[in-house]
Amino acid sequence: MPRTTSCLFLLNLLVGCRSDHITTEDETAIKDVLERQEAAWNRGDIRGFMEGYHQGPDTVFTSSAKIRRGWDATLAAYEAKYVEGDAMGQLDLTDFEIQSVGGDGAVVMGRFILTDTPQASTGVFSLVFARQQGAWGIIHDHSSAETKP
Amino acid sequence: MPRTTSCLFLLNLLVGCRSDHITTEDETAIKDVLERQEAAWNRGDIRGFMEGYHQGPDTVFTSSAKIRRGWDATLAAYEAKYVEGDAMGQLDLTDFEIQSVGGDGAVVMGRFILTDTPQASTGVFSLVFARQQGAWGIIHDHSSAETKP
Repeated sequence: MPRTTSCLFLLNLLVGCRSDHITTEDETAIKDVLERQEAAWNRGDIRGFMEGYHQGPDTVFTSSAKIRRGWDATLAAYEAKYVEGDAMGQLDLTDFEIQSVGGDGAVVMGRFILTDTPQASTGVFSLVFARQQGAWGIIHDHSSAETKP
Repeated sequence: MPRTTSCLFLLNLLVGCRSDHITTEDETAIKDVLERQEAAWNRGDIRGFMEGYHQGPDTVFTSSAKIRRGWDATLAAYEAKYVEGDAMGQLDLTDFEIQSVGGDGAVVMGRFILTDTPQASTGVFSLVFARQQGAWGIIHDHSSAETKP
């Protein structure tokens, strides 16, 4: 393309990529991940649920001051808990609030309600999403259950 | 500048700004925010501690399935709890683990140890940092105290 057009094209990309905020399309894609996770859980599909998280050793899960690192270890822990153990029950993810973290990240806070299982609990989650190779996924999950009265 | 040089300059900026990761300089700046927060707390300076958070109504603090929104409301709550109430005690922030969230965000997990106050507790924090107008600050704080045995 002509050099001037090329420069304008680069400039547009440059301005676009310095965005401090994700787009409404990004928000839709992120909510879609959460809805797919909820649906997977509720059909007993732990691996489908785990697809919402970026696969890799650095993905972090923390709750009640305990820390678990890595997608594989977390899948194994879920399978040990549910596949040969308790019923998975019904999961409801609600009240999403999305904050942009630059143009390629977001933190989603919301409430989880898990019923119909001995593991039943309710509480608040903070899920840190990152766009990696164009796909949105969770890299950090910090959840807090309500303390029982 | 000559048009070719200009294009190369833009291209360099473009490549640079699409980084998926923060730099080691960014990590240093983020740890510096946490060290200033710790130092401010330990000299009884709640406002100095709060400077680690981006000021604004959207900054979120959540713990034990409770949610507080907004920098001003959080400062007021801290002041109500400590300035006319309990001693602030000594705060130790340790074991930082930093994950990049695109090129302009990060989530820092670590442990907090608060002693010498009736509010004493230990646990895990996840702090979501965003670069806003060039400055790193926290926009989302999810902390979980260890449950007492």
